[in-house]
Amino acid sequence: MEELKKRILKEAQVGEGDIIRVDMFLNHCIDPALLERAGKALAKGFRGERVDKVLTVESSGIAVACFTALALGVPALYAKKFQSGYIDPHVYTAEVHSFSLEKSYTLRVARRYLTSGERVLLVDDILSSGQAILGLLEIVSRAGAQAVGVGVAIEKATREGGAVLRRMGLRVEALATVARVEDGQILLEG
Amino acid sequence: MEELKKRILKEAQVGEGDIIRVDMFLNHCIDPALLERAGKALAKGFRGERVDKVLTVESSGIAVACFTALALGVPALYAKKFQSGYIDPHVYTAEVHSFSLEKSYTLRVARRYLTSGERVLLVDDILSSGQAILGLLEIVSRAGAQAVGVGVAIEKATREGGAVLRRMGLRVEALATVARVEDGQILLEG
Repeated sequence: MEELKKRILKEAQVGEGDIIRVDMFLNHCIDPALLERAGKALAKGFRGERVDKVLTVESSGIAVACFTALALGVPALYAKKFQSGYIDPHVYTAEVHSFSLEKSYTLRVARRYLTSGERVLLVDDILSSGQAILGLLEIVSRAGAQAVGVGVAIEKATREGGAVLRRMGLRVEALATVARVEDGQILLEG
Repeated sequence: MEELKKRILKEAQVGEGDIIRVDMFLNHCIDPALLERAGKALAKGFRGERVDKVLTVESSGIAVACFTALALGVPALYAKKFQSGYIDPHVYTAEVHSFSLEKSYTLRVARRYLTSGERVLLVDDILSSGQAILGLLEIVSRAGAQAVGVGVAIEKATREGGAVLRRMGLRVEALATVARVEDGQILLEG
């Protein structure tokens, strides 16, 4: 998605190592018009897959998941990561380790919102080590549903998440892929 | 908003006391088409206010804030509530007590995304005791910005939040207002 690539090259900030900060338009301050177009682009890529539901992780995946689900005409569902707000006690869970936060957390999805046989598209803002998506995959599997693919705004090819998921046979689509981060510069694929 | 009122009356579940659960379309599983129309309705109500930015709290406010911001053609910003993911160390903060969770938490917004003089619309999924909105108001005030009003999908008039905010001179608009919860039945205003 050319527009997203331009925004990354123009606005994203580089932190330590391969950390890239896109909180100026993607995951703290949000440009909703950009996200709407990103959702449409992800939906277009998976339209042939008969998606029943879009599944993401709170909080940074919610915006892109909502716009993807809107474009596909299906519900969006977010796995809860924090002990906050009501959640049905009957849940599917998965333990996830965050390398960036150096801690583990539990993803929870109410059982009533994932049904056996459903075709689920996994969506997130950034795909890095892939731990969050692997947790969602576990939850989808526990529910007897089927993951039809993974759609992300940004994939960091500097980390192994995308490669791991593709080796599992999953289709992974990214609207922009970070090939390398060198000397404070972000280099994108394509 | 008649559509939202119908969904509440048809689908919402009543918990203990005046707890209402709307996680089947609003804040776990999300109906993005309903949220898009809710965002448009909130935007319509505040269009004359020259809104520069929509501000909400993670996680359950993000969807309605994104769609409201999209309809207004402005950015959406969410105050971080959890220690997760990157946030600029230069933040405005506010301490908020959650009565439902019986604990306090810190809201954080990166200073660079709230500017002195900006006209900010505060948005959330549900207005109950009003603590989260009061925290956002504090952050807006610290930034030297101006709150132009509060827009929520659902106001619970069973709690004092809306009345407190209105007594402060704020305009508060709700798309549906829960007047009472009696014998497991939700009674809406209007």
